[in-house]
Parts: sequence; C-alpha cells; structure tokens
Amino acid sequence: MKAALIGLGSVGRGVLEILANKNLGITITGIADSKSGCIDNAGIDPEVVLKEKQRTGLCGDRRIDAAAVIRNADYEVLIEVTPTNALTGEPALGYIRAALARKKHIVTSNKGPIALAYRDLAGLAQKKEVALRYEATVGGAIPIMHTLQDGLCGNRIVAVHGVLNGTCNYILTRMAAEGLTYEQALLEAREMGYAEADPTYDVKGIDAAIKLVILANTVWDNGVTLADIDITGIDLLTPDALRLAEEGDSTIRLIAEAIPDKKIFRVSPRMIEKSHPLVVEGSLNALTLETDMAKEITLIGKGAGSIETASAIIGDILYIRDHYGKRA
Amino acid sequence: MKAALIGLGSVGRGVLEILANKNLGITITGIADSKSGCIDNAGIDPEVVLKEKQRTGLCGDRRIDAAAVIRNADYEVLIEVTPTNALTGEPALGYIRAALARKKHIVTSNKGPIALAYRDLAGLAQKKEVALRYEATVGGAIPIMHTLQDGLCGNRIVAVHGVLNGTCNYILTRMAAEGLTYEQALLEAREMGYAEADPTYDVKGIDAAIKLVILANTVWDNGVTLADIDITGIDLLTPDALRLAEEGDSTIRLIAEAIPDKKIFRVSPRMIEKSHPLVVEGSLNALTLETDMAKEITLIGKGAGSIETASAIIGDILYIRDHYGKRA
Repeated sequence: MKAALIGLGSVGRGVLEILANKNLGITITGIADSKSGCIDNAGIDPEVVLKEKQRTGLCGDRRIDAAAVIRNADYEVLIEVTPTNALTGEPALGYIRAALARKKHIVTSNKGPIALAYRDLAGLAQKKEVALRYEATVGGAIPIMHTLQDGLCGNRIVAVHGVLNGTCNYILTRMAAEGLTYEQALLEAREMGYAEADPTYDVKGIDAAIKLVILANTVWDNGVTLADIDITGIDLLTPDALRLAEEGDSTIRLIAEAIPDKKIFRVSPRMIEKSHPLVVEGSLNALTLETDMAKEITLIGKGAGSIETASAIIGDILYIRDHYGKRA
Repeated sequence: MKAALIGLGSVGRGVLEILANKNLGITITGIADSKSGCIDNAGIDPEVVLKEKQRTGLCGDRRIDAAAVIRNADYEVLIEVTPTNALTGEPALGYIRAALARKKHIVTSNKGPIALAYRDLAGLAQKKEVALRYEATVGGAIPIMHTLQDGLCGNRIVAVHGVLNGTCNYILTRMAAEGLTYEQALLEAREMGYAEADPTYDVKGIDAAIKLVILANTVWDNGVTLADIDITGIDLLTPDALRLAEEGDSTIRLIAEAIPDKKIFRVSPRMIEKSHPLVVEGSLNALTLETDMAKEITLIGKGAGSIETASAIIGDILYIRDHYGKRA
C-alpha cells in the first residue's frame, strides 16, 4: 500500500522508524515537513530520510512543499501528522481536503481538523468512498476508535468517561502521592518531559475537551463543538482537596465525560474511588465506555509517545488495507 | 443476515433477548436446545421462543435436533452457544464442523472446540472462505479478539497477562477486603451467584488456563494446549498471604500469562501492585497486552453475564456482516 506522509515531528518520525524496522507492506512515496519535501513513486527509504532530517533538519528539496506532495505523489493513503491547530485546524484541514478531493484515504493524528470539521470531512470521505481514520487523536496507542466501530458494534454507547490528558494525570498522581502543590508537580512534570513549556492547553482541560469533542462526534455524530463543553482545569486544585479525597479511599482525576441523555458534556477534576478502573497512575490514559449490552468497558494505555502514537497510525493504515482494499 | 442458534442456556437466551429488543438486521431461521428445535426460513420470532422455552422448557419440536437445524435451515452464520466440554469439545465441535462443511460462518462462545481444535477449525474456515469468530470465549463482553485482530494490527504481541476468571477474582477481592478465609469467600461467591455448585474448574485455575490456550493460539498460532500450561489454583491460598501482600501496597490475583519468548505459559496466584491496571475488583476480568509499539494496553470489563456475553456474540455477527458480507 502506498502512502504519503505530511509532518515529521515526533509522530511522523515514529511512523518512519516503524516502517524502517518492520516489513508491513507500506511504501512511502512522498514526504513533507514544514520546510521541504520529496516524492519518489518507486518508494522512499525511511531510514535515509530520518538520517537526512536529523543531519540537516530537512527531508528533501526546499522547493517541494506539502501541497505539492499531496497533489503529485502516487499514493492511496495520506498520513497527516502535522501539529494540531485547535482554532483553525490549518494547514492540516486544507491538506486533508485536498487529498480527499483526490479520493485518497486519510489517516491522521491531528485533533484540529477532526474536532472542528468532523461532519464535513466524514461526509466528504463517504462521498469519495474512502476512509477517514483518526485513532491516534484520542488516547495515543489505545485502540479506542477500533473498539467503538467494531469491538462494541451493536451496543448503544450511553456515556464515555475518560482520563484523556497524561500531563494532568501525572500532576494529579504526584500531588496525591507526595503531597506536592500543583506548582511543584507541574515543575516536576516539565522536568520529566510530561508537560510542555506552555502547559495551558493541558492543565486548563482544553486538550481533554478537544478529545471529548472528537469522541462525542464519533459515537453520536451529534455536532458537539468545543463551545458545548463545560471545562474546568486542574490548575486551581489544592493538595488539601486531594488529601481529603484520599482519606475516603478515593482520589481526584481530570475526567472528560459525555452523557448525552443527561446533556452532560464536561471536563473537570472529579472525586473517584481508587478501585475504579479509570484511576490510572502517571501519564497513562484511560477511557470507560458505558454501553447497554457490554456494560462498562475500560481501555488503558499510553496516551502519548512517538512510537506509541505511530502504532495507532499504522493500525489505521493496515485497517484500510484489510477492509477497504478492494475499494481503493 | 440469517443465523441459526444452537444452545438456549444463559448466552443463547441473551442473544434472543437482544434480537427481540434491537433491530440489528439479524434473522433467526433455526434454533435448537438439547431437547428440541425449530426451523422457519422466513424468520423465527425470538420473543415467542423465549416465552415457549420458559413455559415448557422446549424451544420447538422434540423431533428436530441441533444436527437437523445445522443441516437443513437456511442461514449464513451458525451461533454455537452450547455448554463447554473441555475434554472432548463435543457436541459443539461436531456442530461447528458440520456448519463449516456447509460454508457457514461460525460465531461461538464455546471454549472447548477452540481450545482443543483451533488450528483444525481455523484451517477449515479459511478453506471454506468463512469466518470463525469466538470473541465471547475469553473475557465475556470485553472485545479482546477484535483488539488483537484489528486494533493492535501491526504490533508484535510480546506477552499477555490476564485476570480471566471472575469467580477467582471475586473470592480474592473478598479475602483481601474482609480478611475472609478461602472457604468463607467461596461460600459468599456461591450465594452471590458468582460461583457454581462445583467450582473446581474455576478455583483450580483450569478455566483461566483454557482461556489462555485460546489467547495463545489466536495471537501466536503456536499450537499450545492445556497440557502446556503450568496451573496453580487459588484454593490453597491463606488470608495471611493476602495480608502480607496488602501490607506492601500490593495484592494477589490469579494471573494467566503467556510469554513465549521466555517459554512461560502459566496460571497462578501472583503478587501484583495495587496500582497496576490488571488489579480489578469483584468479578471483573482484565487483560494486559504487552506489545512492541503500543506498549501495554489493558482492557477491563465484565467477564460473564447473559447479555454481556451475548454482546460479544452480536459483535462477531455484525463484524461478519460488515467485513465478510460480499464473500458470504
């Protein structure tokens, strides 16, 4: 299966590393980062590009950009893994639209386009008879979308409850375990590489809310947007609140939850019994799906990481190969 | 999609209840329990059969048996949900072979045939170009097989570690929480309906071992049999052992694990940190898949129950409808 790769950050490099090490039958015919690009319809060696990128910061020719790769390369799947822009979804949104116009399958880790334009993109993909897959946008390596689409097929999903932001979960775990203040735990999270220099999107609950928007649209196709989510972050939480929770065999987690029957769409720190499967430690993510037949199903795993997120991308590509092969 | 249903115990009745309440596009054309059967290629009303079964203990005519339904009804999928016979796999094994010979897809909750004859049945299904699906055999409602086959596609599964027997998990949870002896906890489990009158298969670890055989064959197609599993049950465990574990923020769970690289295939009570995702409470089941790219993925949910197990059956049927439709 031929694929074009747009974006060579942590996830894009993870995809190339996997393809360099595993024979999965996926051939890369075009690559672009923000400054350069390359096209070779006979196949590009992932290892050569990774070395070139590390040495020069480029993946090819400065005169070739993402738009040119999307327009000119010979591929069946566009792998779109550029950084998320939560306000406009660009430039990823334009890339995805351009590839859909060419009847190419889409696999993306980019939350922006899916959270902002799910209906539009899903409709376009359906019209063009191609797949739009975005397993990597929520819960990193955890196969959440696969579980919703196939694993729990036939079930009505009544509610979703998730620990969807590893940064917040790390901070809350450390506050509870060591009695740290929010500021101390955030500093530690930064030193450990679990928090970015500007952690606003994470600690204010916005990242989790964007993921909840993606989940809600996937499950219920209800057109929920970021504006519909009640959001409270963890940045005002005190060690006292955590201590109080822990005294009752509970703890506090930043829970993203959608319960359409009760019109609840919210992200907020909530008290939860320690024995509940959603209570995971450190930077792990977890999602509980409340269903009518299977009852509560919880999925736990790494919500971030280069290879972990690339694993979800690879899973989506292979799903397309196995289940859309004849339509491509 | 037309289906024939063999077996009207808890799971079979769960399937009919779901079909009576949900319009899933599945029509039942033949049903057999151990004493009777019915065939109607125009479609059988699930509600009528459920009432008849409750009233008379029969589902139809005493002159129609499972073999007749399998041979004569017009269906695409055989739903085989008779009780497990772990020694011979019969009569289920014969039913499945007969339906495969007719080029019918198989969906089963029956551990016997899959644990005893996986390669044989999988090879036969492949030859006949039909599906052999058995999501319900391991972990009840948890979509484990879906996750292995699609969700983590591309990953190498390095190991599986599971809490696969709800009876044992309930007993261990209660021993730890209340300091009960094994005998006291077993008695309670029986009263709560979590343990059978003869709990040997559960508490001796055999049920978990059979599920491990199914998992190992599914993941690695390695021909592992029950004789290859080192099995230790929970029936000799003392409250002291649990107390000791709990003092160190750990607990004891009956863990089924397969690590082929280390030639480990065993079921045994093991000490495990309470914060590990596998540590679930009560009768829940859990499975951690250790993989090369996604790292550790844990799935948690109900391992038993009429509707919960039927949910896995329904998921398999709909998977066949969605992904094998054109081959049927």
